Amino acid sequence: MFLRNAWYVAAWDNEIDAGLVARTILSEPVVLYRRPQGGPVALEDRCCHRSLPLSMGKQVGDNLQCGYHGLVYDPSGQCIAVPGQSNVPTGGKVRAYPVIERWKWIWIWMGDPALADDTLIPNWWWMDHPEWKVVRGPVLHIQGNYQLVTDNLLDLSHLTFVHADTLGNDAIVRFPVRTDRIEGGVRMSRLIPDSPPPPLFQKYCKFAGHVDRWQIVEATLPSYCDVDVGCTDAGTGAFEGRRIGGVPFHALSVATPETERTCFQFYAHPRRFALDDEEIDLSYKRDFLRVFKEDVQVMEAQQRSFDRDPNPPSININVDAPSLAVRRRLAEAIQTEHAGARQLRLHA
Amino acid sequence: MFLRNAWYVAAWDNEIDAGLVARTILSEPVVLYRRPQGGPVALEDRCCHRSLPLSMGKQVGDNLQCGYHGLVYDPSGQCIAVPGQSNVPTGGKVRAYPVIERWKWIWIWMGDPALADDTLIPNWWWMDHPEWKVVRGPVLHIQGNYQLVTDNLLDLSHLTFVHADTLGNDAIVRFPVRTDRIEGGVRMSRLIPDSPPPPLFQKYCKFAGHVDRWQIVEATLPSYCDVDVGCTDAGTGAFEGRRIGGVPFHALSVATPETERTCFQFYAHPRRFALDDEEIDLSYKRDFLRVFKEDVQVMEAQQRSFDRDPNPPSININVDAPSLAVRRRLAEAIQTEHAGARQLRLHA
Amino acid sequence: MFLRNAWYVAAWDNEIDAGLVARTILSEPVVLYRRPQGGPVALEDRCCHRSLPLSMGKQVGDNLQCGYHGLVYDPSGQCIAVPGQSNVPTGGKVRAYPVIERWKWIWIWMGDPALADDTLIPNWWWMDHPEWKVVRGPVLHIQGNYQLVTDNLLDLSHLTFVHADTLGNDAIVRFPVRTDRIEGGVRMSRLIPDSPPPPLFQKYCKFAGHVDRWQIVEATLPSYCDVDVGCTDAGTGAFEGRRIGGVPFHALSVATPETERTCFQFYAHPRRFALDDEEIDLSYKRDFLRVFKEDVQVMEAQQRSFDRDPNPPSININVDAPSLAVRRRLAEAIQTEHAGARQLRLHA
Repeated sequence: MFLRNAWYVAAWDNEIDAGLVARTILSEPVVLYRRPQGGPVALEDRCCHRSLPLSMGKQVGDNLQCGYHGLVYDPSGQCIAVPGQSNVPTGGKVRAYPVIERWKWIWIWMGDPALADDTLIPNWWWMDHPEWKVVRGPVLHIQGNYQLVTDNLLDLSHLTFVHADTLGNDAIVRFPVRTDRIEGGVRMSRLIPDSPPPPLFQKYCKFAGHVDRWQIVEATLPSYCDVDVGCTDAGTGAFEGRRIGGVPFHALSVATPETERTCFQFYAHPRRFALDDEEIDLSYKRDFLRVFKEDVQVMEAQQRSFDRDPNPPSININVDAPSLAVRRRLAEAIQTEHAGARQLRLHA
Repeated sequence: MFLRNAWYVAAWDNEIDAGLVARTILSEPVVLYRRPQGGPVALEDRCCHRSLPLSMGKQVGDNLQCGYHGLVYDPSGQCIAVPGQSNVPTGGKVRAYPVIERWKWIWIWMGDPALADDTLIPNWWWMDHPEWKVVRGPVLHIQGNYQLVTDNLLDLSHLTFVHADTLGNDAIVRFPVRTDRIEGGVRMSRLIPDSPPPPLFQKYCKFAGHVDRWQIVEATLPSYCDVDVGCTDAGTGAFEGRRIGGVPFHALSVATPETERTCFQFYAHPRRFALDDEEIDLSYKRDFLRVFKEDVQVMEAQQRSFDRDPNPPSININVDAPSLAVRRRLAEAIQTEHAGARQLRLHA
Repeated sequence: MFLRNAWYVAAWDNEIDAGLVARTILSEPVVLYRRPQGGPVALEDRCCHRSLPLSMGKQVGDNLQCGYHGLVYDPSGQCIAVPGQSNVPTGGKVRAYPVIERWKWIWIWMGDPALADDTLIPNWWWMDHPEWKVVRGPVLHIQGNYQLVTDNLLDLSHLTFVHADTLGNDAIVRFPVRTDRIEGGVRMSRLIPDSPPPPLFQKYCKFAGHVDRWQIVEATLPSYCDVDVGCTDAGTGAFEGRRIGGVPFHALSVATPETERTCFQFYAHPRRFALDDEEIDLSYKRDFLRVFKEDVQVMEAQQRSFDRDPNPPSININVDAPSLAVRRRLAEAIQTEHAGARQLRLHA
C-alpha cells in the first residue's frame, strides 16, 4: 500500500544530467530526463504504441522519441509525431508526472496531478545553504519494503548492535526515547548526557572527554527522515540549545518505494563542521555508506523473513513507540486517500 | 495460445548431428536426435518411469536409453526394454512427434500426428538451390512471445530507429506500406525509389548513386517470415521485375514458441550475389547477428512491459496494418483449431 | 507433506563448532549453535520483535542475542532481556526444537516436543565404533524433493546407468531384488554371485577374480538409509554370513527436507577395511562425492520434470517394489500424524 498523493525522490539532479533515467516508482515504470533549458520531465516509461520503454529511445530537444518506430512525445506526455503519417491517432499519449527539482533531488508526484502541492516537499534548507557542506550518498537499491527504512532511522538504539564499530556504544540504550507528534509525522528524541563519544565522532573531532549526544529524528509522511544527530563536549549546553563545536550534522533520507517489497533510499549528509575538510567528506562517503549497507543487510533479511511469514506472532518494545506512531499515521493517510478515491468514483 | 497443428523449426540439421538436443517447444519438453541411417526423431523428453529427461540418456542405434534405469525407447516412443525384467509394463511409452528434415532445418509437428502434412512447410527453395548462397544464423533464444518476432519483421520502418547504423535510413518511413492477403498469411510491400542505399548494402556493393529499394515480407502462419529485400541502381527496373545486379537476398525466419513468453528464432540468409565472397559471408554472420540482437533487445523489453501490463491502453499506426492482419489470421486459426478439438471431444 | 514427529539431521557436529548455523528445515527457519558446555541448541531463526533472523546475531554464553536491537534468548527460546527496558513483554519468545547429538550429527525434532523420543534415532553404531573408520561427506544441497533420495538409494540398479565408471556394471540388473518389511521401513536385498567387481571396489582391493557382491539397503522413516554394500572373493561365503576380507562398508544417508522441493543430504561412509589407509579415505571423499553428485544431477532433473508436470502418466517396474513400499509407509505415517493432530484439535 502506497500513499500516492505525495512527493517522492525519483533521482539525484545529476543523474538526469547524464541522460535518460529509467526507474520503477510505486510499481510504475517512469523515465526521467532534463530539458535543454533545465527543467526535469517524468513520463510513463512505455510507448503507447507497442509498449517499448521510452527510456530505450532518445531525447530530441524537449521531447522523447521512442526507439522502435520513432513516435515523439512532448513533456506533457502527448504524442506529437508518428513517422510515416501526418496525423497522431486519438489516444496517442502517455502519463506525465509532476516533477520538481529541489534540494539537489528530483521530486515526483505519483498521485492526482491536480493535488500536487510543492509546499509538501520537506523544508530541508541545509541542502542548499552555504554554511553547510553536503555529502551525497549513492542511490541504494534495497530488497525490502520502504517502511523498514523509516523504522530503522526512527530507532537509533540499533546503532549499538548493528553499527558497534562506528556509531554505536553501550550508552545509547540506557536512555529512553521521547515521542512527539509533529505536523505530518513524528519526532523521536533521545538525549545521552556525559557519555563516551562513538568511534566515528571521535575520529572527526578528537574529544578530550565525555560528550553530550543528541539523536532527534523527525519522520514525516510518506517516508522522509531528518536525522539530527551529533555531540559536543559534555556540559557545554547542547541540550539547552547551545551546540558549540563538536559534530553536528543531519542525515536526510527519503525511501522511495519501487514495489511493495523493494525500494530506493536516497540520502545526504549536510554538516556544519569542518566544511573544507575533504578527508571528512571521504569519510562520510565511505564510512556512512558502510553504515547504511549494514542497515540494508538487516532490512533485506527482515524482508525475506516477512516474505516467508508476513504476520508472525511478534512483540513491540519501548523504542518502537515512534515508528509505531508514524506507521499508524501513514496507514491512516493511505486509508483516507483510498476513501477519497472511492468517494470520487461514487460521484463520477 | 499456440497453433498446434503446424510445423515449427525444432533445430538446425547440424545440431542433431552433434548429439541429443533437448528443447522445450510449445511448453513441451522434446528431445531430438538423428538415426544412424539419417532420419531425425523427436520424442517427449521425459522417461515414463521416473520422469528423468531422456536427453540425459544416450542414443543406442535407432533408440534412446534413459540414463537412470536404462529403459529403451524406439523412434515411435514405445518402450521396448526394461533392464532386469522380460516384459515392458502397459503404458510404457512416450509421445513421438512427426519430424521432417527440409531446408537444412528439422521441422516438428506439435499437434495431431494424423494431420501432419508436409506440404504445409513453406517452400523456401533458396535454402537448397545452387544459385543461392546460404548463411546460417545461430539459434536465438528470446525472452519474448513469438508473435513479437513477426510484428518486428513485418514492419521494417523500425530499421530507421533500431538499426540506423546498418539497415536504416530516413528514406524508409516516407513511403507507405501495402498489405495483401496471401495464402496462409499476409504480404507487406514497400518500394523506396531513388534513395541513398543503407550503410550495410553500400558496403556489400559500392553503388555509384541512388538505388531503388524493395522490402517485401510474406508472413505466413504460424510464424514464418520470408523477408525479400534488396536494392539495385535506381531506375534500372527493379520495381518492374528486373532486378539487375545490386543486393538481392532473403532473410528467412521461423519463431518457434518455447513458452508463452519465450521463443527461439531460427533464421538464415540466402543471397544471389557475391556467392563466393567469404568476407560477405562473415559480414552476414556478424552484422546481421548484431541487427537481430538489436531486435531481441527491443522484443525482450516489450515482453517485460507486457509482463507488467498485458493489455495497456494503446494505439495502432499505419505501418501496423500487415502485422495486425496476420495476428488476426493467427487468432482465427487458433480459435478454429480449438473449436475443432472441442467438437472432436463432443463426438468421442 | 512432511512427517513432523521424527528426527532429522540438522547439521554435522563440527558445523556448529564453527559458529551459528542457519538452515531451513521442513520449511521452517532454524538457527543452531553449541553451548559453551557442549550441548547443541536449535531455535526458530526469527527474532519475535522485528523478524530479523537470529543467525545474524551473536552467541553470548548459552544464549543468543539478536543483531538488530539486542534482545537475548535463552536455549528454551524465552526472551530474557530487552536492552533499554527492565521487563520483557508477554509473548517474548521463539520456538525451541529438541536436539540431540549422536553419531557425529545434530538431530532435530520438528514436531511436538512432548513426543520427542531419542530411541527413534537409528542405531548407526558404526559411526562411533573403533573397528570402523568413518569418512564424512559434505552437506549436499539438492534442488529436489527428499523422497527422491530414498528412491535413489533403494534402487541400486541405477548404478549400471548412472555410475558406470565407478560402481556399476552389467551384472547388477541381472539379479532380482527382494523386498522385506522391517520395523519402521523396508529392506531391499540383492545378491550378485560370482561376478566381476565394479571399478571402484577393484581399485580398493585388487581381487584376483570374480566376487560375491551384496547390496542390502534398509530404508526407514522418515528418510534414513543404511546402505550395506560390498563384495568378497566369490564362493568364500559372503551370502552365508561369512564376509571374509574384501570391501565391506556402509553408506549412511539422511535426507532432510528444506522445502517441498529442496533438501539436504547428509551422508557418511563407515568401513571395516583398510582403516589406516588415507588414500582410501581420500578416494571415499572424492570418488563417492562424484557418485553422489551424479545422483544429484539426476534428482534435480527429475524435480524440474515434476515441477512442470507433477503427475504425469507413468509406469512402475520390478525394481521399484522397495521404494514404492517405503513411500506407502511414509504416506500412511503422515496421514496418521495429521489425523492425530485433527483429533487433538477436536478435543481441545
